[in-house]
Amino acid sequence: MEKVASAVLFPCKYATTGCSLTLHHTEKPEHEDICEYRPYSCPCPGASCKWQGSLEAVMSHLMHAHKSITTLQGEDIVFLATDINLPGAVDWVMMQSCFGHHFMLVLEKQEKYEGHQQFFAIVLLIGTRKQAENFAYRLELNGNRRRLTWEATPRSIHDGVNAAIVNSDCLVFDTAIAHLFADNGNLGINVTISTCCP
Amino acid sequence: MEKVASAVLFPCKYATTGCSLTLHHTEKPEHEDICEYRPYSCPCPGASCKWQGSLEAVMSHLMHAHKSITTLQGEDIVFLATDINLPGAVDWVMMQSCFGHHFMLVLEKQEKYEGHQQFFAIVLLIGTRKQAENFAYRLELNGNRRRLTWEATPRSIHDGVNAAIVNSDCLVFDTAIAHLFADNGNLGINVTISTCCP
Repeated sequence: MEKVASAVLFPCKYATTGCSLTLHHTEKPEHEDICEYRPYSCPCPGASCKWQGSLEAVMSHLMHAHKSITTLQGEDIVFLATDINLPGAVDWVMMQSCFGHHFMLVLEKQEKYEGHQQFFAIVLLIGTRKQAENFAYRLELNGNRRRLTWEATPRSIHDGVNAAIVNSDCLVFDTAIAHLFADNGNLGINVTISTCCP
Repeated sequence: MEKVASAVLFPCKYATTGCSLTLHHTEKPEHEDICEYRPYSCPCPGASCKWQGSLEAVMSHLMHAHKSITTLQGEDIVFLATDINLPGAVDWVMMQSCFGHHFMLVLEKQEKYEGHQQFFAIVLLIGTRKQAENFAYRLELNGNRRRLTWEATPRSIHDGVNAAIVNSDCLVFDTAIAHLFADNGNLGINVTISTCCP
Protein backbone atom coordinates (compact mmCIF):
# COMPACT_ATOMS: atom_id res chain seq x y z
CA MET A 1 0.00 0.00 0.00
CA GLU A 2 2.80 2.38 0.95
CA LYS A 3 4.63 1.52 -2.25
CA VAL A 4 1.56 2.39 -4.24
CA ALA A 5 1.11 5.67 -2.32
CA SER A 6 4.69 6.71 -2.92
CA ALA A 7 4.18 6.36 -6.67
CA VAL A 8 1.00 8.41 -6.70
CA LEU A 9 0.87 12.22 -6.93
CA PHE A 10 -1.86 14.03 -4.98
CA PRO A 11 -3.14 17.52 -5.68
CA CYS A 12 -2.36 20.23 -3.11
CA LYS A 13 -5.36 20.84 -0.88
CA TYR A 14 -5.46 24.44 -2.15
CA ALA A 15 -6.04 23.25 -5.74
CA THR A 16 -9.51 24.78 -5.63
CA THR A 17 -8.04 28.22 -4.88
CA GLY A 18 -5.47 27.98 -7.66
CA CYS A 19 -2.52 25.73 -6.77
CA SER A 20 -1.71 23.39 -9.64
CA LEU A 21 0.97 21.33 -7.87
CA THR A 22 0.70 17.56 -7.40
CA LEU A 23 2.92 16.00 -4.76
CA HIS A 24 3.95 12.77 -3.08
CA HIS A 25 2.02 12.23 0.12
CA THR A 26 5.26 12.73 2.06
CA GLU A 27 5.79 16.22 0.61
CA LYS A 28 2.18 17.35 0.79
CA PRO A 29 1.97 18.67 4.40
CA GLU A 30 5.22 20.62 4.10
CA HIS A 31 4.12 22.28 0.88
CA GLU A 32 0.64 23.08 2.13
CA ASP A 33 2.09 24.95 5.10
CA ILE A 34 3.79 27.42 2.78
CA CYS A 35 1.49 27.17 -0.26
CA GLU A 36 0.84 30.64 -1.66
CA TYR A 37 -2.75 29.62 -2.37
CA ARG A 38 -3.45 28.94 1.30
CA PRO A 39 -6.06 31.50 2.34
CA TYR A 40 -4.75 34.64 4.04
CA SER A 41 -5.98 35.38 7.56
CA CYS A 42 -6.72 38.90 8.71
CA PRO A 43 -3.25 40.30 9.54
CA CYS A 44 -4.44 42.35 12.51
CA PRO A 45 -2.63 41.25 15.65
CA GLY A 46 -4.59 39.79 18.51
CA ALA A 47 -6.37 37.20 16.36
CA SER A 48 -9.82 38.40 17.37
CA CYS A 49 -10.84 38.78 13.71
CA LYS A 50 -11.49 35.42 12.07
CA TRP A 51 -11.64 36.65 8.46
CA GLN A 52 -9.91 34.58 5.79
CA GLY A 53 -9.65 35.21 2.09
CA SER A 54 -7.37 35.75 -0.89
CA LEU A 55 -4.41 38.13 -0.85
CA GLU A 56 -6.28 40.44 -3.21
CA ALA A 57 -9.12 40.76 -0.71
CA VAL A 58 -6.98 41.62 2.35
CA MET A 59 -6.80 45.39 1.76
CA SER A 60 -10.51 45.79 1.19
CA HIS A 61 -11.18 43.68 4.29
CA LEU A 62 -8.91 45.98 6.33
CA MET A 63 -10.51 49.12 4.95
CA HIS A 64 -14.01 47.92 5.71
CA ALA A 65 -13.65 45.91 8.90
CA HIS A 66 -10.73 47.78 10.53
CA LYS A 67 -11.48 51.37 9.59
CA SER A 68 -9.60 52.78 12.58
CA ILE A 69 -6.21 51.85 11.10
CA THR A 70 -4.45 54.94 9.75
CA THR A 71 -2.45 54.84 6.52
CA LEU A 72 0.55 57.06 5.82
CA GLN A 73 2.05 57.50 2.36
CA GLY A 74 5.79 57.40 1.72
CA GLU A 75 8.93 55.37 2.26
CA ASP A 76 9.96 57.24 5.39
CA ILE A 77 7.34 57.87 8.04
CA VAL A 78 6.95 58.10 11.81
CA PHE A 79 4.87 55.44 13.52
CA LEU A 80 3.64 57.16 16.68
CA ALA A 81 2.53 54.81 19.45
CA THR A 82 0.59 56.76 22.05
CA ASP A 83 0.23 55.86 25.73
CA ILE A 84 2.82 53.09 25.76
CA ASN A 85 2.37 52.86 29.52
CA LEU A 86 -1.13 51.40 29.17
CA PRO A 87 -1.16 48.27 31.31
CA GLY A 88 -1.46 44.76 29.90
CA ALA A 89 -1.04 43.47 26.37
CA VAL A 90 -1.56 46.23 23.82
CA ASP A 91 -1.18 46.46 20.04
CA TRP A 92 -0.51 49.53 17.94
CA VAL A 93 -1.12 49.12 14.21
CA MET A 94 -0.83 51.36 11.20
CA MET A 95 -0.37 51.06 7.46
CA GLN A 96 2.39 52.49 5.30
CA SER A 97 1.93 52.76 1.57
CA CYS A 98 4.91 52.99 -0.80
CA PHE A 99 6.45 51.33 -3.87
CA GLY A 100 2.91 50.38 -4.93
CA HIS A 101 2.52 48.14 -1.88
CA HIS A 102 0.90 48.30 1.52
CA PHE A 103 2.91 47.51 4.63
CA MET A 104 1.47 46.90 8.07
CA LEU A 105 3.42 48.29 11.03
CA VAL A 106 2.81 46.56 14.31
CA LEU A 107 4.03 47.39 17.81
CA GLU A 108 2.99 44.80 20.34
CA LYS A 109 3.45 44.98 24.10
CA GLN A 110 3.25 41.62 25.83
CA GLU A 111 4.59 39.54 28.65
CA LYS A 112 6.42 36.82 26.76
CA TYR A 113 8.24 36.07 30.03
CA GLU A 114 6.28 36.39 33.25
CA GLY A 115 6.77 39.67 35.04
CA HIS A 116 8.82 41.13 32.18
CA GLN A 117 6.93 43.25 29.68
CA GLN A 118 8.53 43.67 26.29
CA PHE A 119 7.76 45.57 23.10
CA PHE A 120 7.99 43.93 19.69
CA ALA A 121 7.95 46.04 16.54
CA ILE A 122 7.76 44.67 13.02
CA VAL A 123 6.86 45.45 9.42
CA LEU A 124 4.71 43.08 7.38
CA LEU A 125 4.03 43.21 3.65
CA ILE A 126 0.47 42.77 2.45
CA GLY A 127 1.85 40.39 -0.10
CA THR A 128 3.56 37.07 -0.59
CA ARG A 129 6.78 35.91 0.99
CA LYS A 130 8.48 36.19 -2.41
CA GLN A 131 7.34 39.78 -2.85
CA ALA A 132 8.55 40.61 0.67
CA GLU A 133 12.08 39.57 -0.25
CA ASN A 134 12.32 42.55 -2.62
CA PHE A 135 12.13 44.97 0.30
CA ALA A 136 14.02 45.93 3.43
CA TYR A 137 12.80 47.96 6.37
CA ARG A 138 14.44 49.94 9.13
CA LEU A 139 12.91 50.75 12.51
CA GLU A 140 14.67 53.45 14.49
CA LEU A 141 14.22 54.81 18.00
CA ASN A 142 15.92 58.16 18.51
CA GLY A 143 16.55 59.72 21.87
CA ASN A 144 18.91 61.88 23.80
CA ARG A 145 22.28 60.85 22.30
CA ARG A 146 20.98 57.33 21.83
CA ARG A 147 19.68 55.39 18.86
CA LEU A 148 18.37 51.84 18.52
CA THR A 149 17.96 50.49 14.99
CA TRP A 150 16.62 47.23 13.57
CA GLU A 151 16.92 46.43 9.87
CA ALA A 152 15.42 43.36 8.24
CA THR A 153 13.28 41.95 5.46
CA PRO A 154 9.55 42.51 5.94
CA ARG A 155 7.53 39.44 6.84
CA SER A 156 4.67 38.43 4.60
CA ILE A 157 1.29 38.64 6.33
CA HIS A 158 1.03 35.00 5.27
CA ASP A 159 3.54 34.23 8.06
CA GLY A 160 2.02 36.67 10.51
CA VAL A 161 3.28 38.60 13.49
CA ASN A 162 3.47 35.80 16.01
CA ALA A 163 6.04 33.72 14.16
CA ALA A 164 8.38 36.71 14.32
CA ILE A 165 7.72 37.48 17.97
CA VAL A 166 8.28 33.89 19.08
CA ASN A 167 11.77 34.00 17.51
CA SER A 168 12.45 37.61 18.55
CA ASP A 169 13.01 38.20 14.82
CA CYS A 170 11.94 41.83 15.07
CA LEU A 171 12.83 44.94 17.07
CA VAL A 172 12.59 43.87 20.71
CA PHE A 173 12.95 46.24 23.65
CA ASP A 174 11.84 46.36 27.24
CA THR A 175 9.92 49.05 29.11
CA ALA A 176 13.11 50.67 30.46
CA ILE A 177 14.36 51.23 26.91
CA ALA A 178 10.92 52.43 25.83
CA HIS A 179 11.13 55.08 28.54
CA LEU A 180 14.57 56.21 27.35
CA PHE A 181 13.02 57.02 23.97
CA ALA A 182 9.43 57.94 24.80
CA ASP A 183 8.26 61.49 25.12
CA ASN A 184 5.42 62.03 27.56
CA GLY A 185 4.32 58.39 27.22
CA ASN A 186 4.35 58.47 23.42
CA LEU A 187 6.91 56.59 21.37
CA GLY A 188 7.83 57.64 17.84
CA ILE A 189 9.35 54.93 15.68
CA ASN A 190 10.97 56.05 12.43
CA VAL A 191 10.08 53.54 9.72
CA THR A 192 11.95 53.47 6.42
CA ILE A 193 11.15 51.00 3.68
CA SER A 194 13.45 50.46 0.72
CA THR A 195 13.71 48.13 -2.24
CA CYS A 196 16.61 45.78 -2.49
CA CYS A 197 18.10 43.53 -5.10
CA PRO A 198 17.63 39.88 -4.13
CA MET B 1 22.01 74.73 65.01
CA GLU B 2 20.52 74.11 61.57
CA LYS B 3 20.84 77.80 60.79
CA VAL B 4 24.50 77.72 61.69
CA ALA B 5 25.08 74.57 59.63
CA SER B 6 23.45 76.09 56.58
CA ALA B 7 25.85 79.01 56.74
CA VAL B 8 28.91 76.80 57.03
CA LEU B 9 30.78 75.29 54.08
CA PHE B 10 32.27 71.82 54.50
CA PRO B 11 35.06 70.34 52.41
CA CYS B 12 34.19 67.44 50.09
CA LYS B 13 35.20 64.12 51.63
CA TYR B 14 37.56 63.57 48.67
CA ALA B 15 39.54 66.72 49.57
CA THR B 16 42.53 64.50 50.41
CA THR B 17 42.56 63.04 46.90
CA GLY B 18 42.31 66.47 45.25
CA CYS B 19 38.80 67.95 45.38
CA SER B 20 38.93 71.58 46.44
CA LEU B 21 35.16 72.16 46.69
CA THR B 22 33.46 73.29 49.88
CA LEU B 23 29.71 72.77 50.10
CA HIS B 24 26.65 73.27 52.24
CA HIS B 25 25.85 70.14 54.21
CA THR B 26 22.70 69.73 52.08
CA GLU B 27 24.69 69.61 48.84
CA LYS B 28 27.54 67.46 50.12
CA PRO B 29 26.14 63.91 49.61
CA GLU B 30 24.91 64.67 46.09
CA HIS B 31 28.27 66.07 45.06
CA GLU B 32 30.28 63.28 46.65
CA ASP B 33 28.33 60.70 44.64
CA ILE B 34 29.59 62.22 41.39
CA CYS B 35 32.85 63.80 42.61
CA GLU B 36 35.59 63.17 40.07
CA TYR B 37 38.05 62.64 42.94
CA ARG B 38 36.08 59.70 44.30
CA PRO B 39 38.37 56.68 43.89
CA TYR B 40 37.83 54.55 40.80
CA SER B 41 36.93 50.89 41.31
CA CYS B 42 38.26 48.16 39.06
CA PRO B 43 35.98 48.36 35.99
CA CYS B 44 35.95 44.61 35.37
CA PRO B 45 32.38 43.33 35.54
CA GLY B 46 31.45 40.79 38.17
CA ALA B 47 32.84 42.87 41.06
CA SER B 48 35.14 40.10 42.24
CA CYS B 49 38.14 42.45 42.12
CA LYS B 50 38.14 44.91 45.01
CA TRP B 51 40.87 47.22 43.71
CA GLN B 52 40.34 50.97 44.06
CA GLY B 53 42.60 53.81 43.01
CA SER B 54 43.00 56.91 40.89
CA LEU B 55 41.92 57.15 37.25
CA GLU B 56 45.59 57.30 36.23
CA ALA B 57 46.22 53.94 37.91
CA VAL B 58 43.33 52.04 36.31
CA MET B 59 45.14 50.99 33.12
CA SER B 60 48.21 49.71 34.90
CA HIS B 61 45.97 47.83 37.32
CA LEU B 62 44.17 46.18 34.37
CA MET B 63 47.44 45.31 32.64
CA HIS B 64 48.90 43.73 35.75
CA ALA B 65 45.93 42.15 37.50
CA HIS B 66 43.75 41.28 34.48
CA LYS B 67 46.34 40.21 31.93
CA SER B 68 43.89 38.01 30.02
CA ILE B 69 42.01 41.01 28.62
CA THR B 70 42.88 41.55 24.96
CA THR B 71 43.35 45.03 23.53
CA LEU B 72 42.62 45.93 19.90
CA GLN B 73 43.80 49.16 18.29
CA GLY B 74 41.53 51.30 16.10
CA GLU B 75 38.19 53.03 15.94
CA ASP B 76 36.44 50.18 14.19
CA ILE B 77 36.96 46.67 15.51
CA VAL B 78 35.13 43.37 15.98
CA PHE B 79 34.43 42.24 19.52
CA LEU B 80 34.16 38.47 19.22
CA ALA B 81 32.33 36.75 22.05
CA THR B 82 32.97 33.04 21.92
CA ASP B 83 30.68 30.30 23.26
CA ILE B 84 27.72 32.52 23.98
CA ASN B 85 25.71 29.41 24.85
CA LEU B 86 27.73 28.83 28.02
CA PRO B 87 25.19 28.41 30.81
CA GLY B 88 24.74 30.89 33.62
CA ALA B 89 25.95 34.44 34.03
CA VAL B 90 28.98 35.11 31.84
CA ASP B 91 31.02 38.22 31.01
CA TRP B 92 33.08 38.90 27.92
CA VAL B 93 35.51 41.80 28.19
CA MET B 94 38.03 43.41 25.88
CA MET B 95 39.77 46.75 25.43
CA GLN B 96 39.72 49.03 22.43
CA SER B 97 42.33 51.73 22.06
CA CYS B 98 41.76 54.80 19.87
CA PHE B 99 41.78 58.61 19.96
CA GLY B 100 44.43 58.37 22.67
CA HIS B 101 41.99 56.68 25.05
CA HIS B 102 41.19 53.20 26.25
CA PHE B 103 37.64 51.88 26.04
CA MET B 104 36.36 48.76 27.76
CA LEU B 105 33.89 46.63 25.83
CA VAL B 106 31.64 44.46 27.95
CA LEU B 107 29.12 41.82 26.96
CA GLU B 108 27.26 40.43 29.94
CA LYS B 109 24.81 37.54 29.95
CA GLN B 110 22.54 37.47 32.95
CA GLU B 111 19.06 36.63 34.16
CA LYS B 112 17.75 40.07 35.05
CA TYR B 113 14.27 38.53 34.95
CA GLU B 114 13.88 34.98 36.22
CA GLY B 115 13.87 32.38 33.50
CA HIS B 116 14.76 34.91 30.81
CA GLN B 117 18.41 35.24 29.92
CA GLN B 118 19.47 38.46 28.27
CA PHE B 119 22.67 39.89 26.84
CA PHE B 120 23.82 43.42 27.64
CA ALA B 121 26.58 45.06 25.61
CA ILE B 122 28.17 48.39 26.42
CA VAL B 123 31.24 50.57 25.92
CA LEU B 124 32.90 52.31 28.86
CA LEU B 125 35.62 54.95 28.74
CA ILE B 126 38.60 54.59 31.03
CA GLY B 127 38.12 58.25 31.87
CA THR B 128 35.82 60.75 33.48
CA ARG B 129 32.17 61.32 32.69
CA LYS B 130 33.09 64.64 31.08
CA GLN B 131 35.67 63.03 28.82
CA ALA B 132 33.14 60.35 27.85
CA GLU B 133 30.78 63.01 26.50
CA ASN B 134 33.26 63.77 23.71
CA PHE B 135 32.71 60.32 22.21
CA ALA B 136 29.97 58.21 20.68
CA TYR B 137 29.97 54.47 20.09
CA ARG B 138 28.05 52.11 17.85
CA LEU B 139 27.48 48.40 18.48
CA GLU B 140 26.25 46.44 15.52
CA LEU B 141 25.09 42.86 15.07
CA ASN B 142 25.03 41.76 11.44
CA GLY B 143 23.28 38.66 10.19
CA ASN B 144 21.43 37.19 7.29
CA ARG B 145 19.53 40.26 5.98
CA ARG B 146 19.22 41.57 9.54
CA ARG B 147 21.04 44.22 11.51
CA LEU B 148 20.63 45.43 15.07
CA THR B 149 22.42 48.66 16.01
CA TRP B 150 22.80 50.60 19.25
CA GLU B 151 24.40 54.04 19.30
CA ALA B 152 25.10 56.01 22.47
CA THR B 153 27.62 57.93 24.54
CA PRO B 154 30.16 55.73 26.33
CA ARG B 155 29.73 55.44 30.07
CA SER B 156 32.59 56.46 32.30
CA ILE B 157 34.01 53.56 34.31
CA HIS B 158 33.27 55.83 37.26
CA ASP B 159 29.57 54.97 36.73
CA GLY B 160 30.23 51.35 35.93
CA VAL B 161 28.42 48.66 33.97
CA ASN B 162 25.64 47.89 36.40
CA ALA B 163 24.06 51.33 36.36
CA ALA B 164 23.62 50.94 32.60
CA ILE B 165 22.27 47.40 32.79
CA VAL B 166 19.70 48.25 35.46
CA ASN B 167 18.25 50.94 33.17
CA SER B 168 18.70 48.88 29.98
CA ASP B 169 20.76 51.86 28.77
CA CYS B 170 22.88 49.68 26.51
CA LEU B 171 22.42 47.15 23.72
CA VAL B 172 20.00 44.57 25.11
CA PHE B 173 19.03 41.37 23.32
CA ASP B 174 17.75 37.95 24.28
CA THR B 175 19.12 34.52 23.45
CA ALA B 176 16.80 34.10 20.44
CA ILE B 177 18.25 37.26 18.85
CA ALA B 178 21.77 36.16 19.78
CA HIS B 179 21.17 32.96 17.84
CA LEU B 180 19.97 34.89 14.78
CA PHE B 181 23.35 36.63 14.66
CA ALA B 182 25.73 34.06 16.11
CA ASP B 183 27.87 31.81 13.98
CA ASN B 184 28.64 28.43 15.48
CA GLY B 185 28.06 29.75 19.01
CA ASN B 186 30.28 32.79 18.50
CA LEU B 187 28.92 36.31 18.29
CA GLY B 188 30.79 39.10 16.51
CA ILE B 189 29.86 42.61 17.56
CA ASN B 190 31.11 45.44 15.36
CA VAL B 191 32.25 48.28 17.57
CA THR B 192 32.86 51.76 16.19
CA ILE B 193 33.98 54.67 18.31
CA SER B 194 33.87 58.24 17.08
CA THR B 195 34.44 61.70 18.46
CA CYS B 196 31.57 64.10 18.60
CA CYS B 197 31.09 67.77 19.22
CA PRO B 198 29.24 68.33 22.47
